[in-house]
Amino acid sequence: MSRIKLSPNGLDVSRIALGMWRLSSWQFTAAQCLELLEQALELGITTIDHADIYGSESGFGEAMALAPSLRDRLQLVTKCGIVLRDQQSALRVSHYDTSRAHIIASVENSLRYLRTDYVDVLLIHRPDPLMQADEVAEAFRALEQAGKVRHFGVSNFTPAQFDLLASRVTLVTNQVELSPLHLDPLHDGTLDQCQRLGISPMIWSALGGGRLFSEKTLQIDRLNNVLSLLAAHYGVSLTTIVYAWLLQHPSNPIVLTGSGRIAAIKEAVAGTKLTLSREHWFAIWSASTGTPVP
Amino acid sequence: MSRIKLSPNGLDVSRIALGMWRLSSWQFTAAQCLELLEQALELGITTIDHADIYGSESGFGEAMALAPSLRDRLQLVTKCGIVLRDQQSALRVSHYDTSRAHIIASVENSLRYLRTDYVDVLLIHRPDPLMQADEVAEAFRALEQAGKVRHFGVSNFTPAQFDLLASRVTLVTNQVELSPLHLDPLHDGTLDQCQRLGISPMIWSALGGGRLFSEKTLQIDRLNNVLSLLAAHYGVSLTTIVYAWLLQHPSNPIVLTGSGRIAAIKEAVAGTKLTLSREHWFAIWSASTGTPVP
Amino acid sequence: MSRIKLSPNGLDVSRIALGMWRLSSWQFTAAQCLELLEQALELGITTIDHADIYGSESGFGEAMALAPSLRDRLQLVTKCGIVLRDQQSALRVSHYDTSRAHIIASVENSLRYLRTDYVDVLLIHRPDPLMQADEVAEAFRALEQAGKVRHFGVSNFTPAQFDLLASRVTLVTNQVELSPLHLDPLHDGTLDQCQRLGISPMIWSALGGGRLFSEKTLQIDRLNNVLSLLAAHYGVSLTTIVYAWLLQHPSNPIVLTGSGRIAAIKEAVAGTKLTLSREHWFAIWSASTGTPVP
Repeated sequence: MSRIKLSPNGLDVSRIALGMWRLSSWQFTAAQCLELLEQALELGITTIDHADIYGSESGFGEAMALAPSLRDRLQLVTKCGIVLRDQQSALRVSHYDTSRAHIIASVENSLRYLRTDYVDVLLIHRPDPLMQADEVAEAFRALEQAGKVRHFGVSNFTPAQFDLLASRVTLVTNQVELSPLHLDPLHDGTLDQCQRLGISPMIWSALGGGRLFSEKTLQIDRLNNVLSLLAAHYGVSLTTIVYAWLLQHPSNPIVLTGSGRIAAIKEAVAGTKLTLSREHWFAIWSASTGTPVP
Repeated sequence: MSRIKLSPNGLDVSRIALGMWRLSSWQFTAAQCLELLEQALELGITTIDHADIYGSESGFGEAMALAPSLRDRLQLVTKCGIVLRDQQSALRVSHYDTSRAHIIASVENSLRYLRTDYVDVLLIHRPDPLMQADEVAEAFRALEQAGKVRHFGVSNFTPAQFDLLASRVTLVTNQVELSPLHLDPLHDGTLDQCQRLGISPMIWSALGGGRLFSEKTLQIDRLNNVLSLLAAHYGVSLTTIVYAWLLQHPSNPIVLTGSGRIAAIKEAVAGTKLTLSREHWFAIWSASTGTPVP
Repeated sequence: MSRIKLSPNGLDVSRIALGMWRLSSWQFTAAQCLELLEQALELGITTIDHADIYGSESGFGEAMALAPSLRDRLQLVTKCGIVLRDQQSALRVSHYDTSRAHIIASVENSLRYLRTDYVDVLLIHRPDPLMQADEVAEAFRALEQAGKVRHFGVSNFTPAQFDLLASRVTLVTNQVELSPLHLDPLHDGTLDQCQRLGISPMIWSALGGGRLFSEKTLQIDRLNNVLSLLAAHYGVSLTTIVYAWLLQHPSNPIVLTGSGRIAAIKEAVAGTKLTLSREHWFAIWSASTGTPVP
């Protein structure tokens, strides 16, 4: 599969990344998880996406323990900054924590669960209104100097939030939601900023969390109609069309697949080998918006 | 008429520009088109606005062929980047194309239709989510080096989209919609960016595409009431008030008139000689929004 | 009370500032106004906020005349740029004026009313679409050179409007509305810009103009529920909780209190000594939005 530098400073990643946020729901044994990982590697996927709150790190770490030599072939991404509360009440609420102490403790846990000495990329999971940019930068530098994290980025940040943290420390990506059901980053400056800075975004929810192929709305009907015609035209699956559509953005995104089925992962990977005509790319845009381009 | 530098690098243009987007609907002979052009020149209008998709370039070129010596007195602006489809279907849709090949082919066509060796300003007509900024910059430089285009700009770009392309190549203007019926650029950062960079915007749809004086809404009623009082106060037409209102913005805009009637063009030009009081300027703003300023 | 540098260039201010916009409604004698001021000073409040249109400057100046030696202990902030019209009609409307002549005349009046030789900070009160940034910068420099104004800032500016004026002259603050009833600046880039530039915002309407404790809406009910629980938890008043919540933002805001009652002012000041846990900070955020964090 094609590979790309995530940013000008040069971390080499695969265009399709394996997202682990549903790993615990798959109820894989360590051997099954390793099998999926090896199959993904055969397809050229080397970049794996976690977060401290996914509950994915320990299961993945158990698989890695079966084949520790794989570590150097992988780029492990994880995230921190969200504190979840299951039982919410007035004063007990899910919240963000981007303090130095929380970031460093979260990374220590991630390393232990993932059974590795370092993660390749650490992301702040959500923009935190209480983020002290200087303090986050200091935590990042401490982690880098300790050899525990090699690169840093953010997720779901607006351009202004990105500018703030990037004024203090080098960021290599912004992981954002983009799909035919969610076009905002195409128009709100997020991807313009990435392209201007030469930074590849990472894309989550490529299929709208699955809604694209399961729910029924006028928009989804229009999209499925166009995607089906394109799938027939190019001789690939609807999923492949969507991945090709995302990968074609000039910001050179890394697109996550969150599937545990190798067949579905192959459909995503096939998107790296397909280039839609411009007219076909905009056919999907127009099916999403319900209007021709202005 | 007053003239202005479009940007710090110095293209000299007239404050009122003649927009040709309706030329084909006027069904002018070449002689009639030339007559309009000569009358506009007598009023001081030297800047002429086209686009590849207006169907205006060939008719204008035929008029120019009758008086080739006029060329050096004019600043010709044209645009590219939109591919129109008359008969739209699911996979056959109007779309954007800002590839190097498309930009260069479009300019070659424009030069042939306009019967000239160069255009003064080439604009990317609409922000293209698939725009490769490096590729556009390369196409611009190739056109400049070939002597085919002297300056480059954009149209309908958000500040983030402008920043992206401006990070790769010098842009001299952003042509945007502004009128008493469409105040967005006053508040969304578009004109702030122009003033900050010392770049004059070009303004299209000064009269809301004619709606300001033809449709009936509460907003349009309020505006016509205020515009009529101001027209009586200053002893000019309603159209002149609107042009003065637009020209007064501190970003020093160039305002298009899209009329083929010399009487209407004169009303626009008269706006360059009128300065509204600040209170009168805000009377139009308040009639548009329906509220006093905060 | 804790103090802070308003910006990197070093004006020292108190974290709580006394807002004078309702002074005329309190119908204070000069002696009463002086008493309030002295009580505020005892609490550590040294920063006083006016505007030319509040009608507060002359009453405050009369109090100052009773104790001129206080001047050097205070930081006086005032604003200009709004021209109010009581009796509005189609052509007689409230409007903005950021011309050099208006700014300088407004400051001259403020100095006369305040009975002082200088103001510490002058703010442009509202973003003026007709603002000529170069002209405002020139007026600011003239006032600075004449010793009449020491620092300059803006109020209610978007990031793009701030960038425009800051490209011409040093700005030390942006005074904006923020409260549990108005979260916009947390998310729209305003406070990100302040933190990035190292500039403290000033916050007006901390209690939503009093609506937070007087009106009944679902949002206000949720907020009062959470604020009451937190007040009981920390052993302080609801007002103190709100001030602590605002002061805790990493942009290091100066928060205005607009009360003329010393008891209420004390509740605001008490906020400077309280640090909410992150979870409690987000409990207020979630009560405002009605949702957990994403």
